[in-house]
Amino acid sequence: MTTRIDCQERDARDPLAALRDQFDLPQGVIYLDGNSLGARPRAALARAQHVIAQEWGHDLIRSWNTAGWFDLPRRLGDRLAPLIGAAAGEVVITDTTSVNLFKALAAALRMQAGDPQRAARRVLVTERSNFPTDIYMAQGLSSWLERGYTVRLVDSVEELPQAISDDTAVVMLTHVNYRTGYQHDMAATSALAHARGALIVWDLAHSAGAVPVDLHAGGADLAVGCTYKYLNGGPGAPAFIWVPTRHQARFQQPLSGWWGHAAPFAMTPHFTATDGIGRALCGTQPVVSLAMVECGLDVFAQTTMDAIRAKSLALTDLFIALVEQRCAAHPLALVTPRAHALRGSQVSFSHPHGYAVMAALIARGVIGDYREPAIMRFGFTPLYTSYADVWDAVEILRDILDRQAYDVHAKRDAVT
Amino acid sequence: MTTRIDCQERDARDPLAALRDQFDLPQGVIYLDGNSLGARPRAALARAQHVIAQEWGHDLIRSWNTAGWFDLPRRLGDRLAPLIGAAAGEVVITDTTSVNLFKALAAALRMQAGDPQRAARRVLVTERSNFPTDIYMAQGLSSWLERGYTVRLVDSVEELPQAISDDTAVVMLTHVNYRTGYQHDMAATSALAHARGALIVWDLAHSAGAVPVDLHAGGADLAVGCTYKYLNGGPGAPAFIWVPTRHQARFQQPLSGWWGHAAPFAMTPHFTATDGIGRALCGTQPVVSLAMVECGLDVFAQTTMDAIRAKSLALTDLFIALVEQRCAAHPLALVTPRAHALRGSQVSFSHPHGYAVMAALIARGVIGDYREPAIMRFGFTPLYTSYADVWDAVEILRDILDRQAYDVHAKRDAVT
Repeated sequence: MTTRIDCQERDARDPLAALRDQFDLPQGVIYLDGNSLGARPRAALARAQHVIAQEWGHDLIRSWNTAGWFDLPRRLGDRLAPLIGAAAGEVVITDTTSVNLFKALAAALRMQAGDPQRAARRVLVTERSNFPTDIYMAQGLSSWLERGYTVRLVDSVEELPQAISDDTAVVMLTHVNYRTGYQHDMAATSALAHARGALIVWDLAHSAGAVPVDLHAGGADLAVGCTYKYLNGGPGAPAFIWVPTRHQARFQQPLSGWWGHAAPFAMTPHFTATDGIGRALCGTQPVVSLAMVECGLDVFAQTTMDAIRAKSLALTDLFIALVEQRCAAHPLALVTPRAHALRGSQVSFSHPHGYAVMAALIARGVIGDYREPAIMRFGFTPLYTSYADVWDAVEILRDILDRQAYDVHAKRDAVT
Repeated sequence: MTTRIDCQERDARDPLAALRDQFDLPQGVIYLDGNSLGARPRAALARAQHVIAQEWGHDLIRSWNTAGWFDLPRRLGDRLAPLIGAAAGEVVITDTTSVNLFKALAAALRMQAGDPQRAARRVLVTERSNFPTDIYMAQGLSSWLERGYTVRLVDSVEELPQAISDDTAVVMLTHVNYRTGYQHDMAATSALAHARGALIVWDLAHSAGAVPVDLHAGGADLAVGCTYKYLNGGPGAPAFIWVPTRHQARFQQPLSGWWGHAAPFAMTPHFTATDGIGRALCGTQPVVSLAMVECGLDVFAQTTMDAIRAKSLALTDLFIALVEQRCAAHPLALVTPRAHALRGSQVSFSHPHGYAVMAALIARGVIGDYREPAIMRFGFTPLYTSYADVWDAVEILRDILDRQAYDVHAKRDAVT
């Protein structure tokens, strides 16, 4: 049986252990919610102070040039690119995941509409279990395109092959499911979509910085994702959009603001999209929130996604094993796949009183979160989660369950 | 003739003079570009530090509830509302001006399409001299609505009455022109649009915090605007959108993300818009940049828009008079209207070597900016601009012009 000493020994051998010092983590907290809001890189505070005091306060308007504010979406996109198998000039960090998904879906539909062989396709396929805003954005876009698109919601991964047919314009999937932690086989699913004549848009919200992603090898057509989860960019930090070089000339999106213009400061009254990834931009970006994204990326630059993945699987394997050993008497059911290839960097367990148990965990300093129905989510972030953290979290969970030390009438908070 | 001592005496009597201390302004700079990027409220640094270190770093995911992050767009919108004649529950601070304009235009077109009397209208009217991204967003939206909308560009204010006709679905105007400083008569123009059966969307980018605005009395249907200019919210700070209570039930926009859902954490797979202004929201907002917007609003809460307007007109009158007196020998032409009712809070002069002269001014610490063609812009921000600043700026301009101390071959920077 594994002991806490075993866990401490694994921490002593962990090549990523030193990176934890680059994060500001509060005393008395085991933070297992980096899949929702990543912890704060220590450097983020100084970076923000510099942007606010020097670049904004002192240099004022000149910082658009001298501090490179205008180039931030592209420059930081280039730094993110290696984590997702993208090339330089294929990613910008900008706007929100929802807004970027709108751009990507609209562009994909237009690419299909421009192909005489595919112009009649009128269906977007996604999963009913996808993160809701992804479904909502697809519904919003569909309802505004008067040619009459519909969003087809698939109930299980097994049904995807039947659901993607010759009526399908675009498949839109989140690579790692926010609730279950299930990871799609990107290459196989992209190939399936392409074989049926569809384009595929991937949402990497729970993948970027969490699991190795190779968008090119995975056959993705377009992708979006989030920087404030595993990438530790800060609360609500701007999201990203990836447009591969091969699709850039055909990429047209309706949010055609001045930052996507070929000559934004020529102030001409007609929109002409710039070449390259810049055409995915729209309006002026929130510089302070955007600049801090770099501090998270700086930590990733000190390791590799393979090293992160190895530790992620070790942490999630350990958590599953310990919960199943030490909490075996309780009605916990593993929701996340056991197979490594199908697992992201989180573990979800259901429990009939999942919300109440999670509230009790949080009160004891073990911060995960809760998602309907009855699911407790635990995110494992190898940059700052230790094996001893896993042990301690399970012990606190066991204690709460053994003593029934949770309030079954706990009322759900507005947000978490 | 006015002297510098006269200006200093006016500063001594200025009821707003004390507010200047609430801004961090660099030594040796006369900042006349607050119409592009407002100066930094001193409080913004501490506010950002608190959000980053305490709310993000220490409280982590809990801050969505405990620090009210989720409510920031509405709470700060309510604080902005009085500056633009809006009611509580009618404004949210979110996304970018471009994105908010897309929402507003789409919603206005849908309102018209839902009215049998007006459903055949297919034209959006705006000015050729409008800020380009406004035109681009209208063009982008139009090109994606397959019923075939067109954007009609009007060449002068005088042509507006002819251009707004029974084919016009929506009129979209920027209240104060970014280049000339011309201010539209909101009430008269709104009444004209309504008389012709059109809805009117106002962009307040150069109005909010600059001139008194009363959206309700002005007959506006929808409005958007910017927080990083006169409102001093910080570089690229999130923008705002106003939907009056009377239109909220009919307000539908295509960027239907989870923040606009009636029950965002129920995670249902179908979009149902929330009641009220929340339906103008889309995705997760950049919390640090958003939170700092409040520091600018805190300064406005210490005075009134009437007091700000009185000083703004005094500053711009003084600048015009001094330039025309002291630089009379040079080919400067006033672009901004002399009539108070037609003027925003900036003064633009054209000069054949406008770019080079502005570059020389900036090198001497007088920071305005340049806009094609040949226009030097000077923004006057009564919260932190003094009468002596105006005198000194004009003296430096006079010196540069008298000595021809500018490089006619100066090459234009990428951005400013």
